[in-house]
Amino acid sequence: MKALVYHGPGHRSWQDVPDPRITASTDAIVRVDAVTICGTDLHILKGDVPAVEPGRILGHEAVGTVTAAGSAVGTVKEGDRVLVSCITACGRCRYCRTGMYGQCLGGGGWILGHRIDGTQAEYVRVPFADTSTHPLPDAVADETALMLADILPTAYEVGVLNGRVRPGDTVVVVGAGPIGLAAITTARLFTPSHIVAVDPAPARLEAAKRLGADVLVGSGDDPATAIAELTRGLGADVTIEAVGVPETFELCTRLVRPGGHVANVGVHGAPATLHLEDLWIRNVTITTGLVDTHSTPVLLDMIAAGRLDPSAFITHRFGLEQMDEAYRTFSDPMATGALKVVLTRQ
Amino acid sequence: MKALVYHGPGHRSWQDVPDPRITASTDAIVRVDAVTICGTDLHILKGDVPAVEPGRILGHEAVGTVTAAGSAVGTVKEGDRVLVSCITACGRCRYCRTGMYGQCLGGGGWILGHRIDGTQAEYVRVPFADTSTHPLPDAVADETALMLADILPTAYEVGVLNGRVRPGDTVVVVGAGPIGLAAITTARLFTPSHIVAVDPAPARLEAAKRLGADVLVGSGDDPATAIAELTRGLGADVTIEAVGVPETFELCTRLVRPGGHVANVGVHGAPATLHLEDLWIRNVTITTGLVDTHSTPVLLDMIAAGRLDPSAFITHRFGLEQMDEAYRTFSDPMATGALKVVLTRQ
Amino acid sequence: MKALVYHGPGHRSWQDVPDPRITASTDAIVRVDAVTICGTDLHILKGDVPAVEPGRILGHEAVGTVTAAGSAVGTVKEGDRVLVSCITACGRCRYCRTGMYGQCLGGGGWILGHRIDGTQAEYVRVPFADTSTHPLPDAVADETALMLADILPTAYEVGVLNGRVRPGDTVVVVGAGPIGLAAITTARLFTPSHIVAVDPAPARLEAAKRLGADVLVGSGDDPATAIAELTRGLGADVTIEAVGVPETFELCTRLVRPGGHVANVGVHGAPATLHLEDLWIRNVTITTGLVDTHSTPVLLDMIAAGRLDPSAFITHRFGLEQMDEAYRTFSDPMATGALKVVLTRQ
Amino acid sequence: MKALVYHGPGHRSWQDVPDPRITASTDAIVRVDAVTICGTDLHILKGDVPAVEPGRILGHEAVGTVTAAGSAVGTVKEGDRVLVSCITACGRCRYCRTGMYGQCLGGGGWILGHRIDGTQAEYVRVPFADTSTHPLPDAVADETALMLADILPTAYEVGVLNGRVRPGDTVVVVGAGPIGLAAITTARLFTPSHIVAVDPAPARLEAAKRLGADVLVGSGDDPATAIAELTRGLGADVTIEAVGVPETFELCTRLVRPGGHVANVGVHGAPATLHLEDLWIRNVTITTGLVDTHSTPVLLDMIAAGRLDPSAFITHRFGLEQMDEAYRTFSDPMATGALKVVLTRQ
Repeated sequence: MKALVYHGPGHRSWQDVPDPRITASTDAIVRVDAVTICGTDLHILKGDVPAVEPGRILGHEAVGTVTAAGSAVGTVKEGDRVLVSCITACGRCRYCRTGMYGQCLGGGGWILGHRIDGTQAEYVRVPFADTSTHPLPDAVADETALMLADILPTAYEVGVLNGRVRPGDTVVVVGAGPIGLAAITTARLFTPSHIVAVDPAPARLEAAKRLGADVLVGSGDDPATAIAELTRGLGADVTIEAVGVPETFELCTRLVRPGGHVANVGVHGAPATLHLEDLWIRNVTITTGLVDTHSTPVLLDMIAAGRLDPSAFITHRFGLEQMDEAYRTFSDPMATGALKVVLTRQ
Repeated sequence: MKALVYHGPGHRSWQDVPDPRITASTDAIVRVDAVTICGTDLHILKGDVPAVEPGRILGHEAVGTVTAAGSAVGTVKEGDRVLVSCITACGRCRYCRTGMYGQCLGGGGWILGHRIDGTQAEYVRVPFADTSTHPLPDAVADETALMLADILPTAYEVGVLNGRVRPGDTVVVVGAGPIGLAAITTARLFTPSHIVAVDPAPARLEAAKRLGADVLVGSGDDPATAIAELTRGLGADVTIEAVGVPETFELCTRLVRPGGHVANVGVHGAPATLHLEDLWIRNVTITTGLVDTHSTPVLLDMIAAGRLDPSAFITHRFGLEQMDEAYRTFSDPMATGALKVVLTRQ
Repeated sequence: MKALVYHGPGHRSWQDVPDPRITASTDAIVRVDAVTICGTDLHILKGDVPAVEPGRILGHEAVGTVTAAGSAVGTVKEGDRVLVSCITACGRCRYCRTGMYGQCLGGGGWILGHRIDGTQAEYVRVPFADTSTHPLPDAVADETALMLADILPTAYEVGVLNGRVRPGDTVVVVGAGPIGLAAITTARLFTPSHIVAVDPAPARLEAAKRLGADVLVGSGDDPATAIAELTRGLGADVTIEAVGVPETFELCTRLVRPGGHVANVGVHGAPATLHLEDLWIRNVTITTGLVDTHSTPVLLDMIAAGRLDPSAFITHRFGLEQMDEAYRTFSDPMATGALKVVLTRQ
Repeated sequence: MKALVYHGPGHRSWQDVPDPRITASTDAIVRVDAVTICGTDLHILKGDVPAVEPGRILGHEAVGTVTAAGSAVGTVKEGDRVLVSCITACGRCRYCRTGMYGQCLGGGGWILGHRIDGTQAEYVRVPFADTSTHPLPDAVADETALMLADILPTAYEVGVLNGRVRPGDTVVVVGAGPIGLAAITTARLFTPSHIVAVDPAPARLEAAKRLGADVLVGSGDDPATAIAELTRGLGADVTIEAVGVPETFELCTRLVRPGGHVANVGVHGAPATLHLEDLWIRNVTITTGLVDTHSTPVLLDMIAAGRLDPSAFITHRFGLEQMDEAYRTFSDPMATGALKVVLTRQ
C-alpha cells in the first residue's frame, strides 16, 4: 500500500510500504477512507518529538472501514464504518477504567503515528479495536466524523470541561487556530455569556467571530482592558490556552478572575513562569491534559442530532494520493488559510 | 487598652492604644481571651506586606467575648463567646454568596491586622460580625477553638479540599511547619493510604509522624524514589505545598501522578517555573488559594464531637502581656520548637 | 396603598391597606413597578396553604424601586431599581452560607405573600434587603427581569441543575405549563441532544416546540416508546417533573435510564409510589427542592448579554389596578392561553 | 468437580458437576480458594429471583487461582491469585466505559450465580477476565480479600459514596446486618462526626458499636428524637437504607435534613411510599444502585496499607465441602450470630 513515511527531521515521503497485518487478537485492520493532518505531525517533521523514529508512518486521525478483526474483537466487524481515534485504549488499566484513556498504562495512549504506524496510509492496524474505534451512524459523513478523531474532543475535554465552562461565564480563548476555534465551538455548548478570542491574525479572529466569539482582541488591543470591561474588573471565569508558548500561558493566568480556571490545551516545548507571588492568594485552578476521548461518543451523538457541526473547520479537500500537496497547504496556513485539510480515498 | 503595634519593618511594641469602638451597625467589639501569632505576622514585621501601614495593630486570630454589638447584628450578642476568624465576610457580595469569603468584594477578606486593626490586643472591632464570628459551644476550650481561626481551615480548604484528597490516596505534604502539620491532620479525615511528609528538619518530621504521616523524607532522602515505591512508579495522587518557595512548588509538580492534584498552600514571594513542556500532557490540576473559612463551622463541630483534636499544635502558652516573649519564641522555631503559641487573658 | 388581600379560601380583594414601613434596620421598602401571579397564589386561594392567614397580601415576585432602606442596608439605596426575589435570605444561617437560601433558618426562605405581606401591592417591605434583592442593569426591562423572580431560577436550579443536564443528553420534561416551559428554555443552556415535552394539551406542546423541544408527546402517544427510540432503548438521561401529581412523578421514574436523574420541580399535595422493586438496582438519582435563587445573578447577566430571553413566557399585560382581571385571566389558562401575566404600575 | 446447585425454590445440593471450560478468548478459569454466601443467595433459594434457573451453580464472590486463561486475556495468567468480583464487566460498552460496570450492556453485570454458573464450586469460569478479576497482592489474605467481592464495595459505593458522606456529617445507617455494618465501616473513611445505627436486634447494635457507630437506636427508641438532638433539630446529613423494606426506606426519608442524601442499598421486593407532599420542598437527594465495583482496587490498596480491616465481618469458617453446614449457619443469623461465613479449599 501507499503511506506517508517519516524519514527523520525535514523528510517525509508518500511511498510504498507493506500492508499492515493483525498481530494481536484484539487488533483490527481499517481501510482509511478519510484522513487529516494535525499540527503535531508538523512538529514531528521538525524533529520535535524524538520518540518518533525514522520509518514511522505518521497520522493519528482517520475514518475508515474495518477489513479484518482479531478473534477477540467483539464490538466491530469487517465492513463496519468506524472512527479511528487519536487515543488507543487498552480498556483494562487503572487509567482506562476511569476514562483517562490518554494516560493508558497498558500499551495505549497516543501511539498511532507516534510509537506505531499511523493513519496517513491506505490501511492502518488499530490495537485494542474494541475500545479504540467508534462505529459511525449513517447520518454522519466521513469528513464530519473525522473532526472527532482529535480536534473536537481535545478542545472540549482539555479546554472546556477541564476549564469548567458554565452558563453565563466569560470565557477567553487565547489562540484562534484550529484548536482554539474548536474550543470556541464547544464552549458554546454551555452557553457562556461572552467568548473572547485573542489572536494577532485578523483572518483567525474573523473565523472566531463566525464560530461564536463575540469579543475579538487583535494585535493592537489590550486583552486585560477588554475583559475588565466585560466583568466589572474581576477577570474571566475561564481562560483557555490554545497556542503552546510561555507568553500565552502567562497571559491566561493574568486574565482569570479569583476563583476562575485556566485550562491549558497548547502543546508546550518550554517552561513558563508561574507568578505565584500574585496567584497564591487568588483561588485559581490551572489544568493541563492530553485528550482522553471519553467525550467522543457524546460528541458523535450531538453531531448526529444536529446540535454540533464541525464542518466549518474543513478548509481544503484532497484525494489520498495528494498527500504531499495537502501537507504543503496545511504547513502554510497564513498563506493558504488552512484550518483542517481532509484527504479522502477516491 | 494594650495592643501589639507595628511601627515599620523590624519594629513592634506592646503599648497603650485607644479602645476600639463600634463604627458601623454591623460591627461587634470582642474582648480578646486568647490570641496567637501567625507566620504572616513575621512577614509583616520584615516589611514583606507593604499594605500594612505603621501604627497598625497586628493579629488576625482570636477567641473572645462580645462586649458590644451594633444595632444590625443579629446572631451574636454581648456576653457571647466567639471565634474571630482570620477572614471577614460582608456576606452580600458575589464571592461571599458562594462561600468564597476570602475573596470578599464588600470590604472583607483578610483585613484584620492587615488593613484594619487586629486581634493582638485586649479588644478588637470585628466588622460584619454576623458573618465573621462563630459562636463557640461550651465543650470547646478557648485555645482549641483558636486553632480554627486560621491554621486548620487554611490547611483543610486550600490543601486538602482543593487537592481533592480521597480515601486510599497517597498524599505528599512538602513542609512540616504548622501549616504542613495541619494539612497532615486534616488529610487524615479522608483516610488516605499514605501520607508522606517532606522536610529537612528532623524535629518537624517527628511531629509529622506523631500526627499521622507514615513515610518521612528528610534532607538526605529522595522524595521521588520514596513515592515511586509507594505508587508503582506513578506518582502521588495529591501533593500539598506548605512552604512558599519556588523549589518546593516545583517539587510538588514533579511528584504528582498523571491525573493528580497539586494544592499550593504556601505564601509565595517570587515566581516559580512551571515545566509545561512536561506537564502539558499529564492531566495535572494545580490550585492556589487564600482560605475562605467556609469549613470553620464543620471543623468546629468535629472538635466538639471529638473527631478532630488540634491541641498538639500548641507548644507554648503565655499571658497576653507576655506578647514580646511570645513573639521571640515563635520567631525562632528551630531553637524553641515552637509550632503555635497561645496567649491568654489572665 | 392598594393591595391584593387574601380573605380565606376563595376570597381575595384589591383594596386599601396601610403602607408598609421599615421595621428592622436590614429592611427595604420597594415600590412595585411590575408584578406577576404564580400558580402557588392560586393554590393559596383554594386554601391549600394553611400557613397563609386571612388578611395577608399575596405575591412573591416583583420588580420595583427602592423608596427607603434601613440603616444597615449596604448594597441598595433609595432610587435603585431592583428585583424582589421569591426567596428572602438572612445571609447568616448555615443554609444561607452555602447558597441554600430557600432553606433559610434565620427568618427567610419563602416568606413574601406567605408568612409576611407580599408583592401584589403598590409597595412591599423586603426583609434582609442586601441578600434578598438584586439591583437591575438598565439593559434589562422590568417585565423581563420579573421572570427571574421565581419561574426561571426555579426551573433552572430545581429542574436543570439538580437534574445535571449535560451536552448531548436526552431530557424529558413532563408538563408544559410555565414551569415546564422554563425548564425547556434553561435546559437548552446545556445543549442537550433532545428535549422531549410531554403534555396532553396541544397548545402547550406547541409552545414547547417554539421554545426548543424537538420531540412532542401528546395525550395519545406513549412516551416510553418515543424515548426508547431516541435512546436505543436505554431511557432518558434526565426527566424533569413539572406538574405535581403522583402519576407524572411515577412516569418520570419509569422513563429515566440506569444512571440517570429524576428532578422533581412540581409542588405535590399527595404521596407518590416509588417502585423500589424496580429502581433499587438501576442507579437512579431523584432530587426535590424549593428554589434557592443562587442562580439569579447569573441568569440576570445572561439576559443582559442576550443569551437568554424569557419574554416568550409573557402572554398578557395589565395595569396594576387591573389585578382582578389579571387573576381571572391567569386562573383559566385553557381558555385564555395564559402563561405568565404581567401587571405594571402606570 | 463439586458445586452448590440450585434445583428450584427450597432445593439445593452440593454435588458433582462437569468442570467449567473456556468458551471465549476473554474467559479465565479460576480455582476457588475461598468463597462466601450472600443474602441474595438465600433470596434465590426462596424463589425470589426467577431469572435463576434450576441447575444453576450459585455464588458470586470468590478468591482463587487462575488455572487457565483465554488467548485474549492480557492482565492475568495461570497461577495468578485473583479476586472474582460479583460484577462482570465487558469493559467496552457505554456503561463500562464510565465505570458503571453493574449496568454493563455487553454481557456483564451481575451474572455469576445468576445467569451463568457461579463461584460456590471448586472451579468457576469468569468471562471478560481482564476487567472482571483483580490480582491480589501477597499482603492481603484470601478471606480478607473475599470481603471485597461484594459487601464492602456495595456498602461503600451505593451507601457511602452515593450518599456523599463528608467529614463532620451525621450519618444514619438503618439496618445493622452485614451490609449495614459495612456501610458503618466505610462511612468512617470520611470521618463523620456521628454514625447512628438503627436496628431492633441488640446483638447487631453491639456489632455496630464495635465497628464505629457512636449512637445506637434500638426497638424501643425513637430515631427522630435521637437525630434531632445530634443535629439541633435539622435531621441527618445522610441516611443509608440497608434493609430492603418500605418502612425502613420511608424512615430514611423522614430522618434526613433539608439538603441531605438518602442512599438506598437494600434490595427491595415491594414499592415504598414517597411522601412528596413533604419532600418536594426539602432539597432531598435519593439514590439507588447496584454496586459497580469501581472502588474495588482502591479498597484493596487500603486493606494492603492497613487503613481498612474487614476481618470483623467474618464470624464463621468452613471447608469448601461443608457447604451445607455453612448455608445452615448463614441462614439463621439470629441463632448463630452469623455475619459473613467463609469456606476455604483445604
